[in-house]
Amino acid sequence: MTKHMVRDFENLKKKVLGLGGVVEEAINNAILALLDRRHDLAEEVISGDRQIDIKELDLEEDCLKALALYQPVAGDLRFIIAVLKVNNDLERMGDLAVNIAERASYLSVHPPLKVSLDFAQMVTGVRRMVRDSLDALIRMDTNLARTVLTMDDEIDSINRDMYISLQELMKEDSATVERSVHMLSTSRHLERIADLCTNIAEDVVFMVDGDLIRHRTEDYRKPIPPDRN
Amino acid sequence: MTKHMVRDFENLKKKVLGLGGVVEEAINNAILALLDRRHDLAEEVISGDRQIDIKELDLEEDCLKALALYQPVAGDLRFIIAVLKVNNDLERMGDLAVNIAERASYLSVHPPLKVSLDFAQMVTGVRRMVRDSLDALIRMDTNLARTVLTMDDEIDSINRDMYISLQELMKEDSATVERSVHMLSTSRHLERIADLCTNIAEDVVFMVDGDLIRHRTEDYRKPIPPDRN
Repeated sequence: MTKHMVRDFENLKKKVLGLGGVVEEAINNAILALLDRRHDLAEEVISGDRQIDIKELDLEEDCLKALALYQPVAGDLRFIIAVLKVNNDLERMGDLAVNIAERASYLSVHPPLKVSLDFAQMVTGVRRMVRDSLDALIRMDTNLARTVLTMDDEIDSINRDMYISLQELMKEDSATVERSVHMLSTSRHLERIADLCTNIAEDVVFMVDGDLIRHRTEDYRKPIPPDRN
Repeated sequence: MTKHMVRDFENLKKKVLGLGGVVEEAINNAILALLDRRHDLAEEVISGDRQIDIKELDLEEDCLKALALYQPVAGDLRFIIAVLKVNNDLERMGDLAVNIAERASYLSVHPPLKVSLDFAQMVTGVRRMVRDSLDALIRMDTNLARTVLTMDDEIDSINRDMYISLQELMKEDSATVERSVHMLSTSRHLERIADLCTNIAEDVVFMVDGDLIRHRTEDYRKPIPPDRN
């Protein structure tokens, strides 16, 4: 690797992590807007999306330039392809944060739903998946990446429970239909963010090991247990 | 371009179009399963997804090999990057077909919903977007691709109307809640398929012209009107 190449690759890494930070903040703010019924914060997330879109386009152009200029092979090629994919996933996570913020904006000016949901647990789980998938990326930590993959099932299961509870609520009290549908959508958006975290985790494994692990059965996705000695 | 390179690039094109054909069939069958209440066809779509996943992995590996082997620049590089993205979008469209098939499978064994929806128009619109985006890809037709981009607004608008109608239905008759929620999801999956068609259309424009048109305002996305002379 030439000095220029090292510098440009470092720059790509810096930019993807920078974008990751902005997207993580958007997700956290969207969730906060929802939990604290903060219309102002929701609007902030919505208007901030343009910045994420611009960063995504900029990083994609950098990746294409690096591909054309350095014509990388093996691990270096995988690195750039993985950055391209993570870039795309982060932008979609930003869109989902906007979707949640839009629901939060609606819900903030309507009476709260009186229903017991595992929402706090879902939010905590999704936040952790966002944090851990980005940490795995920063540290190129495939074991942490594989841990992220195992967390997705819990989120799917909470999402299913949310559907059941909210359907019950709508049946009992038809006045809750609109708000319940907004909550259903929020739950689904969170579940989609978790899915995209697993994409990033898969890209980290691919970047480091060259393994394409998506679409595999569970066994391939589990973290490798630490040595006994 | 060497003879080998021409052959391998043709092969990538053939494979992405092959995958496009399989995904288009999955979407059409999922819609048919829903409209004709055919449980068997829904199951066929669900079990067929594995084939789509395998094709996606195979094509991605071919793209990475071509990048490493030919170290393409300019239009050739854009071509491979676009194939990588379209490949990813098609796989996601396959997943959405499965989601629709799962809803169709549930709805086929429950009484039909008695509600007047613009569902036929939505289905026709989405089918046309799938067909046109793949045609634009086959023919590298940027004008057709830009037409696809203008079709998305109509689908979004029908999706919003579906939400309103189904919420009304749930409020009037609580016995329809589960089925209505399944229909809401189906509508949303169709809308997401339309979104992915616009991604493919954007990739075609990028492939041919090198223009990154996503996240742009409407004016950039409209088809260029034919010359007056």
